Amino acid sequence: MHPLAERILAGDAPALARGLRLVDDRSAGHQDLLRDLFPKTGRARIVGVTGNPGAGKSTLCDRLIEAFRKEGRRVGVLAVDPTSPFSGGAILGDRIRMQRHATDSGVFIRSVATRGHLGGLSRSARDMVRLMDAFGCDVVLVETVGVGQDELEITQTAHTTLVVVAPGMGDEVQAIKAGILECADVFAVNKADRDGADAAVRDLELMIALGKESLLSASKIRGHAVHGLSHGEDEARAHGVEASADAVGEGPFTPPIVRCVAVRGEGISELVRGLDRHYLWATQTETGRARHAARARLELREALREALIEAALAELGPSLDAALSRVERREADPYTVTADLVRAFRGRP
Amino acid sequence: MHPLAERILAGDAPALARGLRLVDDRSAGHQDLLRDLFPKTGRARIVGVTGNPGAGKSTLCDRLIEAFRKEGRRVGVLAVDPTSPFSGGAILGDRIRMQRHATDSGVFIRSVATRGHLGGLSRSARDMVRLMDAFGCDVVLVETVGVGQDELEITQTAHTTLVVVAPGMGDEVQAIKAGILECADVFAVNKADRDGADAAVRDLELMIALGKESLLSASKIRGHAVHGLSHGEDEARAHGVEASADAVGEGPFTPPIVRCVAVRGEGISELVRGLDRHYLWATQTETGRARHAARARLELREALREALIEAALAELGPSLDAALSRVERREADPYTVTADLVRAFRGRP
Repeated sequence: MHPLAERILAGDAPALARGLRLVDDRSAGHQDLLRDLFPKTGRARIVGVTGNPGAGKSTLCDRLIEAFRKEGRRVGVLAVDPTSPFSGGAILGDRIRMQRHATDSGVFIRSVATRGHLGGLSRSARDMVRLMDAFGCDVVLVETVGVGQDELEITQTAHTTLVVVAPGMGDEVQAIKAGILECADVFAVNKADRDGADAAVRDLELMIALGKESLLSASKIRGHAVHGLSHGEDEARAHGVEASADAVGEGPFTPPIVRCVAVRGEGISELVRGLDRHYLWATQTETGRARHAARARLELREALREALIEAALAELGPSLDAALSRVERREADPYTVTADLVRAFRGRP
Repeated sequence: MHPLAERILAGDAPALARGLRLVDDRSAGHQDLLRDLFPKTGRARIVGVTGNPGAGKSTLCDRLIEAFRKEGRRVGVLAVDPTSPFSGGAILGDRIRMQRHATDSGVFIRSVATRGHLGGLSRSARDMVRLMDAFGCDVVLVETVGVGQDELEITQTAHTTLVVVAPGMGDEVQAIKAGILECADVFAVNKADRDGADAAVRDLELMIALGKESLLSASKIRGHAVHGLSHGEDEARAHGVEASADAVGEGPFTPPIVRCVAVRGEGISELVRGLDRHYLWATQTETGRARHAARARLELREALREALIEAALAELGPSLDAALSRVERREADPYTVTADLVRAFRGRP
């Protein structure tokens, strides 16, 4: 067993910090660590938090940490920052608010920078969440900046994706990229005391109504058959989520829209209730569990894609250069050359 | 030779339309068509046009078409639309303006929807540009909506990427995602008669100044050695771009910021001059050509990545399902399982 694995499983925070760095840097031994910890994962509830810069995600996360801590839950936060030299400072500034929890041993906060290729980051984020899971976090919040493709990929690793919007930032709902509806499980309209909050809520309602039809067809996920819901029920109960009051049905989940004023802590309990309801749906309904299975399938496929190209580049380096020169001189076309490279990788003539 | 190939090379527009559909749908025979046409490509000048919705990209493209047509150039336009049911209509509406060129046989306009996976779209867009190139377009404009990762990937297939911003859309420069600086070759501040145009220009200037250092290091591309610039000079001259007046030097290219009012046709000649200067840099300087080579390398790598996963999924389907079940039951971890699948694909125990 990797020397850090046992310490992380025992809830040793410095060991977790070192393990996260190892995984983030993809340093030697990180795969062994991940292999050793994997059987102990799958317990944490993962909540992705996304939205445009300025929507108040960090303040909202701060309030969510507070709410989960009151329930006695151990909370992990993975804040994913873009490397942009222009916004980096401001974002770190925002996150200072969350640091008030730094002295609470039940809260573990870690920032990672987005860098290089995308697939890389979502893989890295997923692995880091697994470490927090193995460490014993009951809830892991994954906060990302912006709502681009990259962020959506990251939040897809979560049970629940919370999208935060705020009025007064221009046409904020329009500005949210296509594809958000398939990813948003709960909407928070933050800074709801400002002008434009009603309009933002109406826009979201319209968007949900318009997208309902496509949501319905999207819910027919060709996933694996899911047998029995008892594990899901146990899982939900273990997280203090009770099905009784806010029962969720089969079929697609309609994202609730919750108004809040995070700086004053208003609307937070309603938001937690919305998140709980979605968690119930995700873990207890057949549709929710099929979605989870489909995502796991996608994850494995992506991992395979990365592993294949890594192995191929390591072995085919010189042939790749030669092929490139031929394409540049237009002596060969990229389509034929690619097929030849695949055959070479498989050791076939 | 593919039956459409000869007709496309002869400049037959209906054949081009059919070929584009074939490539967009990835229907049977599309690879043969691409293979046949590839040796005849590499002649067109490709300009990517991107920017947030509402910045006026389509109107600007309309003016650029006009300017290039005045020079007697054959223009192709590939407009990449998102599939979002919420914005689709409006965007198509915008593009009606461009349709005034539909009766001009020297202009070929084609819209494609973004759908499914990303890598797929940028590959598809690149292949469609190649068809327009083989067809005889002197200039191909690739217009994308938004400035997310996906759009950046598409514009990277261009010689020059034009980023369009407009004042009065909130914090537009801040809203442009990280990574844009590495991709923007020319900035157009459209609707420059509006309040806030000066501020937008200042923001861009600041952004460029701040990013200069990172641009400088990014310019040290580990590309292939580029010998001789004569081909580049010929290429530029063939496109009517003269080096004399606006000489470009070695080293990184500082993106010019051009104010325009596209609806009134103001600032268009300055914009064309900025685009020409960048094209000179891209084709005639060592730095520019090294960037081109590095991108070609990246393209081949991406094509190889896709080809590998396609072949692996086709062959490993059942093993993938079995692996997934084992991971779900936590009998195996995804890291080990992935490595095993790579070995199985290579036919090694």
